[in-house]
Amino acid sequence: MTVAIIGVGLIGGSMALALRDLGIADRVVGVDANEDHQRRALELGLIDEAAGLDAAIQQSSLIILAIPVDAAALLLPGIMDSVDKQVVMDVSSTKKQIIQAVRDHPKRGRFVASHPMWGTEYSGPEAAVKGAFTGKAAVIINKEESDADALAMVENIYRKIGMSLLYMEAGAHDLHAAYVSHISHITSFALANTVLKKEKEEDAIFALASAGFESTVRLAKSNPAMWAPIFIQNQQNVLEVLNEHIAQLNAFKRCLENKDYAGMVELMENANKIRKILK
Amino acid sequence: MTVAIIGVGLIGGSMALALRDLGIADRVVGVDANEDHQRRALELGLIDEAAGLDAAIQQSSLIILAIPVDAAALLLPGIMDSVDKQVVMDVSSTKKQIIQAVRDHPKRGRFVASHPMWGTEYSGPEAAVKGAFTGKAAVIINKEESDADALAMVENIYRKIGMSLLYMEAGAHDLHAAYVSHISHITSFALANTVLKKEKEEDAIFALASAGFESTVRLAKSNPAMWAPIFIQNQQNVLEVLNEHIAQLNAFKRCLENKDYAGMVELMENANKIRKILK
Repeated sequence: MTVAIIGVGLIGGSMALALRDLGIADRVVGVDANEDHQRRALELGLIDEAAGLDAAIQQSSLIILAIPVDAAALLLPGIMDSVDKQVVMDVSSTKKQIIQAVRDHPKRGRFVASHPMWGTEYSGPEAAVKGAFTGKAAVIINKEESDADALAMVENIYRKIGMSLLYMEAGAHDLHAAYVSHISHITSFALANTVLKKEKEEDAIFALASAGFESTVRLAKSNPAMWAPIFIQNQQNVLEVLNEHIAQLNAFKRCLENKDYAGMVELMENANKIRKILK
Repeated sequence: MTVAIIGVGLIGGSMALALRDLGIADRVVGVDANEDHQRRALELGLIDEAAGLDAAIQQSSLIILAIPVDAAALLLPGIMDSVDKQVVMDVSSTKKQIIQAVRDHPKRGRFVASHPMWGTEYSGPEAAVKGAFTGKAAVIINKEESDADALAMVENIYRKIGMSLLYMEAGAHDLHAAYVSHISHITSFALANTVLKKEKEEDAIFALASAGFESTVRLAKSNPAMWAPIFIQNQQNVLEVLNEHIAQLNAFKRCLENKDYAGMVELMENANKIRKILK
């Protein structure tokens, strides 16, 4: 089938590669508001053809929306106006707002809301990688609002690209995403700013930065145009997690101010329980 | 030569493997207050012989001190009392206190203070790995306080195991270490506690945890017995960095509370400058 990918960046580009590698798409049409990205996606062979939004929708059986979450929520109702029997899926990191945007749309059933849990700190067509999604989880959101055939197509695609499926309601997804993804990005951005502000001797210092530093701070390279809308759409959940995180840092700080060895060990031993979850 | 390794855990064990693989040590004697660790180090072939501290020192040309920083500062003066022409080196993550502990020792020249910038979140003899230090940086601290031959031996060893050398004064080292290592561990411990406190639905949720979460939180598996003494010895520097980090998180929080898109983008674009440093 022909697949339209709207937004040929990190996720859209990686999705294009996966769909073609597995023979799910025999033709990929790419749409991107950024002309450089559209051209690069063609050059890199991520897409077979670059097109405008309407032309891409008309010739495709599946439309994948892979643009920042604010633009996705704005664009989706118009896309739903244009589709007939086609299936539309998104891959956005926040779900309440986009689900709300088409809740009462007469074609709501043709839309399947999903979130494949994969990403890197890079962005744009050059960031697309083969085999990106294999072994990761994909969440299908509010599945009862989608037509059975549309849901089956999207489930099938995620299974074929090697993802395990989870089902959630939009509000639950957004809360969990705040904990397992959004807060990690905020702490990484803040950690980078901490170090950049205080450490002026960059050359001397960053020779010292070992793997531990790199892993906690690498997400700080992430694209603000992708993340600002996520944080704003998920404001309440992210604030709740951020407040708890600042409280946890203050607990650590109080122990350190008092040289409270036992208190600090207790905080760290509790944190060690993450071993149960992250092997 | 025969090398004594005091503390056959993550760093001491990895050092033992490196020294023997490269033919620097033809025999490694291991000392560990934890009898299980001593036995496991023998079983794993990290060491050729387990011995008590005095016996190990007497038969070795080089003594490597690889125990938690509080124990290292306590033990070092007694070790220096026992050595004659041998060389003693440490691998501790904080330097002011251990340097202070032997500042006026008559054998001070036989001691070379160093910090190989490598580690993982695991600990104990099982955590030792081959080739651990290759391509990383080692810092030699207050080199002018060491005898020329002792310094040359330690420099030579670090070069042979593939490390690049940096030279620093103890206070500068401890400040930089707070920025590029200690704060990363505190944010990771606090992030693990944040998630563990709020997220009760572990099964549902941790299927969602993608690579970003794992990389920011993995240091939370680290050993409290190693890290509590580091934070306490480096209290002032770590508090300074931690205060700045909490201020950076609060700046982010204010933007989020106000849905200040431009402010949030500005914070993230600044954080993106870490790309210059972390490739």
